[in-house]
Amino acid sequence: MALDALRELLGPRFSTGASECALHGRSEAHFPEMPPDAVVWPETTEEVAQIVRHCARHRIPVIGWGTGTSLEAHALAPHGGVCVDFSRMDKVLRVAPEDMLAVVQPGVTREALNAELRATGLFFPVDPGANASLGGMAATRASGTTAVRYGTMRANVLALEVVLADGRVIRTGSQAPKSSTGYDLTALFVGSEGTLGLITELTLRLQGQPEAVTAGLCAFPDMASAVETVIATIQSGIPMARIEFIDAANVRAFNAWAKGDMAETPHLMVEFHGSPSGVREQAASFGEIVAEMGGGAFQWAERAEDRNRLWKMRHEGYYAARAAHPNAFPITTDICVPISRLAEAVEETAREIAEAGVPGPILGHVGDGNFHALLLPDRDRPEEIAKAKALASRMAERALRLGGTVSGEHGIGMGKLGYMEAEHGAGWEVMGAVKAALDPLGILNPGKLVRQQMAGSAQPPSRAPGAP
Amino acid sequence: MALDALRELLGPRFSTGASECALHGRSEAHFPEMPPDAVVWPETTEEVAQIVRHCARHRIPVIGWGTGTSLEAHALAPHGGVCVDFSRMDKVLRVAPEDMLAVVQPGVTREALNAELRATGLFFPVDPGANASLGGMAATRASGTTAVRYGTMRANVLALEVVLADGRVIRTGSQAPKSSTGYDLTALFVGSEGTLGLITELTLRLQGQPEAVTAGLCAFPDMASAVETVIATIQSGIPMARIEFIDAANVRAFNAWAKGDMAETPHLMVEFHGSPSGVREQAASFGEIVAEMGGGAFQWAERAEDRNRLWKMRHEGYYAARAAHPNAFPITTDICVPISRLAEAVEETAREIAEAGVPGPILGHVGDGNFHALLLPDRDRPEEIAKAKALASRMAERALRLGGTVSGEHGIGMGKLGYMEAEHGAGWEVMGAVKAALDPLGILNPGKLVRQQMAGSAQPPSRAPGAP
Repeated sequence: MALDALRELLGPRFSTGASECALHGRSEAHFPEMPPDAVVWPETTEEVAQIVRHCARHRIPVIGWGTGTSLEAHALAPHGGVCVDFSRMDKVLRVAPEDMLAVVQPGVTREALNAELRATGLFFPVDPGANASLGGMAATRASGTTAVRYGTMRANVLALEVVLADGRVIRTGSQAPKSSTGYDLTALFVGSEGTLGLITELTLRLQGQPEAVTAGLCAFPDMASAVETVIATIQSGIPMARIEFIDAANVRAFNAWAKGDMAETPHLMVEFHGSPSGVREQAASFGEIVAEMGGGAFQWAERAEDRNRLWKMRHEGYYAARAAHPNAFPITTDICVPISRLAEAVEETAREIAEAGVPGPILGHVGDGNFHALLLPDRDRPEEIAKAKALASRMAERALRLGGTVSGEHGIGMGKLGYMEAEHGAGWEVMGAVKAALDPLGILNPGKLVRQQMAGSAQPPSRAPGAP
Repeated sequence: MALDALRELLGPRFSTGASECALHGRSEAHFPEMPPDAVVWPETTEEVAQIVRHCARHRIPVIGWGTGTSLEAHALAPHGGVCVDFSRMDKVLRVAPEDMLAVVQPGVTREALNAELRATGLFFPVDPGANASLGGMAATRASGTTAVRYGTMRANVLALEVVLADGRVIRTGSQAPKSSTGYDLTALFVGSEGTLGLITELTLRLQGQPEAVTAGLCAFPDMASAVETVIATIQSGIPMARIEFIDAANVRAFNAWAKGDMAETPHLMVEFHGSPSGVREQAASFGEIVAEMGGGAFQWAERAEDRNRLWKMRHEGYYAARAAHPNAFPITTDICVPISRLAEAVEETAREIAEAGVPGPILGHVGDGNFHALLLPDRDRPEEIAKAKALASRMAERALRLGGTVSGEHGIGMGKLGYMEAEHGAGWEVMGAVKAALDPLGILNPGKLVRQQMAGSAQPPSRAPGAP
C-alpha cells in the first residue's frame, strides 16, 4: 500500500485513524467534511521533503495543515491524500533583535512567537484574530486588524524555506532588508495556499514595541458617519495602528456574548502606537474628526488589560455572532475596495442584507477598505440559504465593480474559486501556468486556488467551486 | 522580411536606423554595445500586444526600454531583436488623491509624475537617483535613497497591466489596498526585468507630502563611527526618510565636481519627514546618537533649495566619481547585508579596496544595509581591471556569507547573472521554470536574469555572464 512507507518513516507520527483524519478534514467554516487518507506530523524539513517525494512518486495529494482556522477550506482534502500537520515544527529558531527579524518553523503560532519576543522589545504585528500558525498565515497571505499600519504577510515575510512538489528544498529571499536579484519567489509562495510548495521555515520582520499604546471605542449614530470617519482619518494621514468597524447587529451579539452594555449602534475600535506625545497627538486629531462626523465620546483603554479585553471582543466577533444565531449556516464574506468606495460598498451591502431579511452583521478592517458580512441564514430554511448565497455573490460583484477584490484576507481555497476568473481574467490562466510549471503532477493541495485537475486523476473536484 | 510588418503597423515609429539602434544598445555602465535590430515606439497597449504577437510568430527577441539608465545591461540586445521604447507611453492616466494612488503609463518618469502630483499634496517616494521611467523602475524593482522609509518598488506598485509573451494582456492586483486572491502576480512581474512580460500600465501607491522636511550632512572621523551611527539609528526606531553614507574618496570627488569645501572624511546625509515637532524630535534623537559616536556638528538644510542641492550632490555621486577618474573602466557593485553585518561588510570591503590600490569610493543606502563601491580601474591597465573584477566578486561572496544579497537594487540583467546560482541555488531553477512557463519561446529579453536559451536559436548568449 502506497502509504506504508510513510508509516515506516514516521512511526507514531503517521496516522490513518478515522478520528485524526476527520479532525483534519474540518474547518471553522461550514464546508462539508473532506478528510485526508492519512495525517503526518513531520519534525524536520528533510522529513517533509521525504514525504513529498514519496507522495510525488505515487501521485498522492499533499495538503499542509497549520491550526485549521481557514475560513475558505484551504486545508481540506477534497481528493484525499496526506495531510502534513506542522504542529510539531513549532520552534523559534533564531531571534535577531539587531536585524529586527525572527526565523521560525511553520508551526509556531503568532501568539507563541510574541510570547517569546516579549523580553526583546520587539513584536510580530500581523494579527488575523485566530491564533494561527505562521506557516499558515504566510501560505494564505493573512492580514487582520493591524495591516493598516504594518502591512499584511506580504510585507512581513522576508525569506522562506520551501519544499517543492518534487521534494527539492529551496530558500527564497535573504536576511538583508531588500534585494533585486530575480523573481520575487518569497512573494510568489506567500499567498500560494500550499499549491506551489510547503513552507518549512520563515524569516519574519519584527517591529519595535511602541513606547505608548492607546486604544478606544466610539459609538456613531449610523453606519455612514462611522465609515466617513474612517475615510477622513486615512486621508488625514494619522498613522492608525488599528481601525475597525462593527455594526449595531455585532454590538448586540457582543453584548449578549460577553454580557456587555455597549450602545447598540455602529462603533469604531481604534488603536494608536507611538511615543507618548505622538499617541496623544494622534488621538486628539482623530477625536476632532469623530466630533465633526457626529460620533460620540470615546471610551479609552490605556491599560494593557483593558486593551486586551477590547481586542478579544473584536476577535470573537465571529463566535459572538454565531452564538446569537445557533441554528445558522454561516457564510463568510471578505470584500476589499478602494477607500474612496468604502462608504458606497458598506451601505449597499447593508441595504441588501436588510432587504433580504437574512441576519448579516458587518464588521471589518475598514482602514484597508476590507469588511466582512457574516451571513447567518437558518440552516433549515433552504430559501434563506439561497438568499444568503445570492447576497455573497452580489458582494463579490460589487467589490469588482468598485475596483476591488473578492477577498481582502480570507483567501481563495475552495470557497472563492468561482470568482477567480471574474477577478483575474487571463491572469488566472497565468496562475495556472505557474502552478503547472512548479507542480506538474498537481499533487500540492489539489482543488484549491487554480483551475487544475490532478494529472493521472480522472476525478473532478468533488465539490462545486464557490459552494460553501 | 520579418520586421516589415512592424514598419507597416507603426510607420515612423519604427526604425532600423543604425544610430537609433546603437543608442538603444548602450547603457550608462560600460557594457559593450549590443544594439537591437529595430526600435519601435508604441503609443498604446494594443500596439505593444501587436508587436509582441508579431515577434512571437517570428521568434524575434523583444526588449523593453525605459530611459536606458540600467547599470546591469537590462535593456541591451545581446541577441538582437526589437527594442520597445516606451517614451511615447508617457501619460499620467489618473490620480486618485482620496485613494492615494496614481495610474500611469510605463514611460512616465518619476520626476514627471512628481511634478504632476505637486498640487495634490501627494508624492511618489521611490527615488533611485536617475530620472528613470516608472515602467523600468517596476521591471527592475528599483529602490534608492528613500526605501528605508517608504520601501522599494515592491511595496509601491499596487497593480499592473502586462503584455505577455504571446500578446495576451492581463491585469494584476486591484485598486484595493490589499488582496488575498491567488498568486501575487504583481510581485512576480515587479523585478522580472522584462523577461516575463512588458508592463504597459502601473497603479502606484502615493504618500502624503510631509508637513515638515529637514535634511542634513554630518562628518565622521572614520568609516566605522559613521556606520555604527547608522546601525544605532535604525535600531532606535527613528523613522529616517533617508540615511546615506559617503566615504572620504566620494567627498573628494564631490568637492572637485561641484567646487565644494566639505571636510574630506566619511559623511552621513540624512532626511527626516513628519510634523514640525516630529521632525525636531527625530533630529534631536539622531543628533544624540551622532555625538555619542564621535560625529561632528550637523549642517542642516531646511529650505527646499538647500535640500535639493544636497540630494543632487548625492545623486551625482556616480558622475562625480567617474569625472575624477576619466580614464576609468567603471565596475559598479551593489551588495546588501543585514544591518547587524553592515560595519563588517563595509570595513572589509574598504580594506580590500585599499590593499588592491584600485580607486573605489564607497557610498550607499546604508539604512537598508545596501552599499556600492564604484571600482574605477584604469581602462588601459588590464591587471588593474582584473583586480577590480576580483574585488567585485569578493564583495558578492561577502554579501552571501553575511546572509545578504549580491544586488540590493541594481538588479541582475547580464551583469550579475554569474552570481544567481550561488545566491539562489535550486531557487534559480524555479525562476527558470516560471520563465519557461510564461515565455516558452524565450523571446522576452533573452540573455537576462535566468539561465535560458531562446528556443529555436542555436546561438548561445554572445557575452559571458558576469562580464561587465
